[in-house]
Order: sequence, then structure tokens, then C-alpha cells
Amino acid sequence: MDAMMMDSMKGMMGDMQTMDMSLMQACMDACSACEQACTVCSTQMMDCAPACMNCADMCNTMMRSMMRMQGMAPAVMMSMLDACMAMCQLCMDMCMQHAESSEVCRMCAAACKACMDACMAMRGSMMAA
Amino acid sequence: MDAMMMDSMKGMMGDMQTMDMSLMQACMDACSACEQACTVCSTQMMDCAPACMNCADMCNTMMRSMMRMQGMAPAVMMSMLDACMAMCQLCMDMCMQHAESSEVCRMCAAACKACMDACMAMRGSMMAA
Amino acid sequence: MDAMMMDSMKGMMGDMQTMDMSLMQACMDACSACEQACTVCSTQMMDCAPACMNCADMCNTMMRSMMRMQGMAPAVMMSMLDACMAMCQLCMDMCMQHAESSEVCRMCAAACKACMDACMAMRGSMMAA
Amino acid sequence: MDAMMMDSMKGMMGDMQTMDMSLMQACMDACSACEQACTVCSTQMMDCAPACMNCADMCNTMMRSMMRMQGMAPAVMMSMLDACMAMCQLCMDMCMQHAESSEVCRMCAAACKACMDACMAMRGSMMAA
Repeated sequence: MDAMMMDSMKGMMGDMQTMDMSLMQACMDACSACEQACTVCSTQMMDCAPACMNCADMCNTMMRSMMRMQGMAPAVMMSMLDACMAMCQLCMDMCMQHAESSEVCRMCAAACKACMDACMAMRGSMMAA
Repeated sequence: MDAMMMDSMKGMMGDMQTMDMSLMQACMDACSACEQACTVCSTQMMDCAPACMNCADMCNTMMRSMMRMQGMAPAVMMSMLDACMAMCQLCMDMCMQHAESSEVCRMCAAACKACMDACMAMRGSMMAA
Repeated sequence: MDAMMMDSMKGMMGDMQTMDMSLMQACMDACSACEQACTVCSTQMMDCAPACMNCADMCNTMMRSMMRMQGMAPAVMMSMLDACMAMCQLCMDMCMQHAESSEVCRMCAAACKACMDACMAMRGSMMAA
Repeated sequence: MDAMMMDSMKGMMGDMQTMDMSLMQACMDACSACEQACTVCSTQMMDCAPACMNCADMCNTMMRSMMRMQGMAPAVMMSMLDACMAMCQLCMDMCMQHAESSEVCRMCAAACKACMDACMAMRGSMMAA
């Protein structure tokens, strides 16, 4: 996400202003990249495709929700991060089964891993707060 | 969801065929109705709008994931149901604050409640299995 | 879409209140049914899958836009209806190639046809207005 | 979109391989940026919000469809680009009415303009082909 937009967003966040904004920006970017990788991977007609579609939708929903924090609460956010991490893990596991034969699956698995890590970092910072 | 499509779907579900299909159909329908109510409610420019947008996206993602069970696993499904219930609860709470002045908020809150109940029933059946 | 919600929506539509609400309700329902049929069909791993995913997303976007007419204009709406009809036609054509072997493709093609017809009726009523 | 993923995508595009891939990559990136700007802008509770939500959904659908060209055809693509440009124009016009008072609206309008331009360039290259 664009840094200027991110600054503007911060001013609109109300109660959630204590969020670590750099972790949140990294998390939104990782969700966006994962949605895109999963969308491409889903067109390969391999058995990971349904998991990739599920993961693309979950990552888009996760990203958008972080952009609409006025309609969020910490407990809901943590529950959604858990769901997003679980979905990314499943998609990564399925894509890794094709890692040797498909470069797209390798890239999709890497995007899922990066998204999981970013969600975990975000969640960790919320626990600490 | 159409009953004939539901029957066909069952044949494609692989490992997840033990799911209670009538509860799942009810859950998908409740998610769809909730997405629609939240989408309309989000245009009222009241302070529930961001929660309604978050809820609309989560419900759509939940519904689609139930239609793509080949790319799901029970633990991931339960985590997503938890996130969906948490989001519906938050949206309902925010809309209920306008229940006296807005009929749309009342209907949106009712759709959120129905979606939570359907997700809870679905989750309960998975715990029992 | 629920009839009570539809009535409430009408009151929020501003300039677009001249829309034929029964055609619009039918169109939203057809979009929703088409999104669902396409989502299920996309998991069959047949060559129609990418078209089904495109069609599911376009139908969801079309449906939601009709629920947010305050952020619409007639010319934009007609352009989106054109895009939705074109996408449904393509998806239907691809699914019809598997009509003999797959019941899901037959149902998906029928949902695409119904959605095209509903969009055409909606568009026709806007031209007449 | 990531350049390596883009290269892999090219190999999967079948009939549509004549597309100008650098214009397409720019167009997908502009759609993604526009979806994000519109999503943030929609939470400001200003009268542009419903247009921003419509635009966010259309841009996401446009982006994903370019990632799933196996399920696309040139005529459908052009129709979707027309719809996306029309929606971006409307959203930009509405946000520009708040340009003096809202920095977020200014950024959203700029993202809409950039998305329109990228769609126009993409469409132009398809006409020439």
C-alpha cells in the first residue's frame, strides 16, 4: 500500500490507532501479493486450485478489513488473522506437493508463507499491546 | 443455494463428504443473505458502514469456501467459521445501536444473527464428527 | 434478495429511483445464483474453470453495484451490464462444451443464461426510461 | 504484480499470448492500487463512499480476470475494460468534489485516473492487435 495513503488512513482509525502501522502495512502488502499469486496458481488446473481460490478470497478479505479498521475490533481482527494464517498454511502445503514440477506453485507457496509470517507478526504485536 | 447444485457438489467433496449437507446449505444461504444485507446497510453512511463492509466480504469468503471444500480442511474451516461469527457479532452490535432509527440496520442485524447461528450449527456438527 | 430489504433499499436510491425495482431484484438474484453456480463449477478442474471464476467475480460485483445505486450512474450501470452479459455468455459457451458429461456444467450454463437474460431485461428497461 | 509470477503467467495464457504483457502488468497494478485507495476512501463516510465501494469491487474483478486469461476472450476483456473505465471515471468525479477538503479523496481520485489510463492503454493495444 502507498505510504501517503497509509498516513491518511492512520488518522481515520479511531480506537485502533495503537496498531503498529508498519507491521500492518507489511501485512496488507503480503495479503495482496498472496491473493495475486493464488489467483494465478488457481488457473493451472492442478489439485491445489480450490485451496488457492479459497486463499485468494481470504487474503483479499483480510487486506480490506485492515483498511477499514473503523469497523473492526481487536478480538475480531485476531480471529480473522488466525483464519487467514490457517488458510495460507493449507494452500502452501498443497502447492508444495507440486513444488518440483511447477514454478507457479513454488511462487504461490512462497507468497502464502510470507503472508502467514506477516499475519503472525501483526497478531503478535496485538497480543503485546 | 439450489438443491440440485448442492447434490452435485456433494459428489465432488472428497474427504469432506462427512459434512452435514443440510447444515452446510443453510449456512451458505445465511452467508449470502448476510452479505447482501450488509452491502445495502453499508450505503447508509452511518457509523456501522465499515463493519458492514467487513462483514459482507467475510460472509462472501465463507460462502465460497464452503462451495470449494476440495480446497479446505476441517481445522481451517472451523477457524474461518470462528472469524465469520466474530465479524457478524461485531456488525450486529454496531447495527443494533441504530435499531430504533433505521429499519435497514434492524434487518442487517437480523441477517448477522442468522448467519452467526448457522455458522455455530455448522461448527457444532464438525466438532461432533 | 429479501423483499423487505428491497423496499428499504428503494428509499435510499436518490436519482436512480426510476429503476424498475422488480427487474432489479430479479437481476440481483440471478447474479447471486450465477456466482454460486460458477464457484461450484470452477472446482471441477475442467477447462471452463477460469471462465467460471471470472464470471463468479463479475456477477458478485454486478450484484453489489445494484445494491449501492447511490454510487452508480445509468451509463456506468449499462456498461457494467454489458460486461456481465459478455462474461456470462463466454462462461456459458465453455460450460456447454461439457454439457453431456457434466451435470454441474449444465447447471452452470443455465445459471449464466438466466443471468444474461436478467441483465438484458434490466438494460432494456433503462434504455426505455 | 511480481515480475517472476508475470513471466510464469505468460506461459499459461494460450490464445491470448499476443497481449502486450508490460501494459497488462501495469494495468493489473493500477487496478490493485485503485481497489486499495477506494477501500480506504469508502470508510470516510462521505457521499463518494458507495461509488468507491463499487469501484473497489470492479477493479478487483478486472485485476483477477487479467490473471485468468485462459477464461477470457478479447471481446469480453474489452467490454470489462470499458466498464472498469466508466466506474473509475464516476468514482473520480465524485471524489474530486471533496478534493479541497479531503486528502484521501484526492489520492483516491488520482488512483482512479491512473487506473483509467492503464485500462485505456490496454484496450488500445488490443484494438491494434
